[in-house]
Amino acid sequence: MPGPPCLQDLSPKWARFCLGIERFSRQILGRSFAQATCVLGLSGGVDSTSLLAIAAMLCHRSRGSLVAVHLDHCLRAESALDAAFVRNTCEKWDIPLVEERIDVGRMARDQGCGLEEAGRRARYDLLERVRQERDAQIVLLAHQLNDLAEDQLMRLVRGTGWPALGGMAAYDPERRLLRPLLLTPKAVLEDFLNAVKHPWREDTTNAEPCATRNRVRLDVLPSLLRENPAYLKAAARLWRQARIDQKHWDATLHAALPKPAPDTQEGERSLSSTLLSESSPPLRLRLYKSVLDSLGPGQSQCDALFRLDELWAMGVCGKTIRFPGDKEARIGKAGIRFRVIDRKKECG
Amino acid sequence: MPGPPCLQDLSPKWARFCLGIERFSRQILGRSFAQATCVLGLSGGVDSTSLLAIAAMLCHRSRGSLVAVHLDHCLRAESALDAAFVRNTCEKWDIPLVEERIDVGRMARDQGCGLEEAGRRARYDLLERVRQERDAQIVLLAHQLNDLAEDQLMRLVRGTGWPALGGMAAYDPERRLLRPLLLTPKAVLEDFLNAVKHPWREDTTNAEPCATRNRVRLDVLPSLLRENPAYLKAAARLWRQARIDQKHWDATLHAALPKPAPDTQEGERSLSSTLLSESSPPLRLRLYKSVLDSLGPGQSQCDALFRLDELWAMGVCGKTIRFPGDKEARIGKAGIRFRVIDRKKECG
Repeated sequence: MPGPPCLQDLSPKWARFCLGIERFSRQILGRSFAQATCVLGLSGGVDSTSLLAIAAMLCHRSRGSLVAVHLDHCLRAESALDAAFVRNTCEKWDIPLVEERIDVGRMARDQGCGLEEAGRRARYDLLERVRQERDAQIVLLAHQLNDLAEDQLMRLVRGTGWPALGGMAAYDPERRLLRPLLLTPKAVLEDFLNAVKHPWREDTTNAEPCATRNRVRLDVLPSLLRENPAYLKAAARLWRQARIDQKHWDATLHAALPKPAPDTQEGERSLSSTLLSESSPPLRLRLYKSVLDSLGPGQSQCDALFRLDELWAMGVCGKTIRFPGDKEARIGKAGIRFRVIDRKKECG
Repeated sequence: MPGPPCLQDLSPKWARFCLGIERFSRQILGRSFAQATCVLGLSGGVDSTSLLAIAAMLCHRSRGSLVAVHLDHCLRAESALDAAFVRNTCEKWDIPLVEERIDVGRMARDQGCGLEEAGRRARYDLLERVRQERDAQIVLLAHQLNDLAEDQLMRLVRGTGWPALGGMAAYDPERRLLRPLLLTPKAVLEDFLNAVKHPWREDTTNAEPCATRNRVRLDVLPSLLRENPAYLKAAARLWRQARIDQKHWDATLHAALPKPAPDTQEGERSLSSTLLSESSPPLRLRLYKSVLDSLGPGQSQCDALFRLDELWAMGVCGKTIRFPGDKEARIGKAGIRFRVIDRKKECG
């Protein structure tokens, strides 16, 4: 298949598959990425190589354009081979490629973070730089359904609540990241590349994965897949349900949340008794969290939010609950007053 | 410690622990079980033996009463030893005991079900019979936080959605089952029985657990606990959040769901366009499910509900979606009509 890959060259099954990927992105984004200018993070693994082929075909069909970006992390001896593979693929398919090398090991030492974190930062920084240089609208990432299932389990282990438990977003508007393959199993991507007779690089992990992620990937997820061979479908359903609930709560919160009054002091917010008594318990918990988050850093813990709501529902007045980041909530007759404690003042 | 165990004999720490168990049941039930007549399922394991001691003390203090129920499943050679242990414990603490023996193996063969299922049926039937005979209000079960975490994982494996993913209920009003230990880790119950110097029977599984449950218990849950030693706390938080969301959706659904019109044919229900367009997407999905469930057996799958809502939101008219149990939903101008397909009529 010399020259860019073409939708017409595919069997009907795989052509439908590619159009399904485009339809998913349209559901998520409201429009197809294939009409835009896209930057694509390309490692050479099965996920990003599939996405490159799919995106190239769809962009070609819809007059969008595509730039591939490869970052050599300089962490493994084979990384030069990965880079060569990526270069060959892009040449064969006539896709512009931006290549960079970064010594991620040194970066991790300099910044005092782990290899995985340093690698991620370097990749996202590069993608964003290329996006701006090329005036691109979208950054395409190749996370697939197995990654999503793994992400859900990581969140479960960490104690993440609903709907965040449903896993990573298909679109991150702030960083313009789109994950068109998020509901596609990895095995389907392997079948696809085999069908178009294009190879990929195995085991292109860019950095040593963190121990927990490794064990979730190699131990927990395979266990669940053994117990329920349709587990990936279940993970996709959970993601869809979480997305629906997330949108609902975002909209409800947005409609309910009062703008800070003009005379409000900085580091202070209030929720009135009227608003609180008109709100359902799940909305109240989200109101507390949103107001506390708006006061600055320090993640408010679920248990403390439950406790605050319990006290509020019992009509306890004058009680104060402390939250991380030197924040507190004080229950009064008029409602709940949230504020950042000014330590200097308190001591002085 | 001859005679019934007594709260005053405990250290302050364990007395507070017992009062915490009572407080939890008051949150769940609106009143304390310790003022009622309770039936308690007693296997002789650490969970039910702890619950017996705790319930005996609390009932003694609040003038409730307690009957223990033990079922010998006749599945293991040691089951007679379990029965003897249970008898001794109840004699020592002066608690009435109802003992029965059932050949669960034969029951499973007769009813054509698994040993675990047969054992569960036999136990719940016996508990309900004794509850009625003794005119008791509550059946106490000893499920604890490790059981809850295991139940959440079982539900995750099976593809259960939110909020059911949060795990088993602390109270089942239909069968009057109360689980006062649901947020207490098993290790705390072991510490408690050690503190009151009372033994328990190890490994009193009443039937061969199903293979998946076994692997979740012995493999997946320990993995998650290794990754996050505070995982049980996370499981308890997830349960609390699910309970809050469940209550919210139950109430919202109850308020929104129209009574079937008097002229509605049996096996038929409708949801009007007005209602649907006023409802949020998560409420719509719950409305579909509730109406479909009311039409008889056959579990409606999440994916089909998503599809129905997608079509409705797109304004597609005349489209019909089939659901398990010979049910269908037809989208029309006036709304969605749900009905059971009369196969005889269709063919005749």
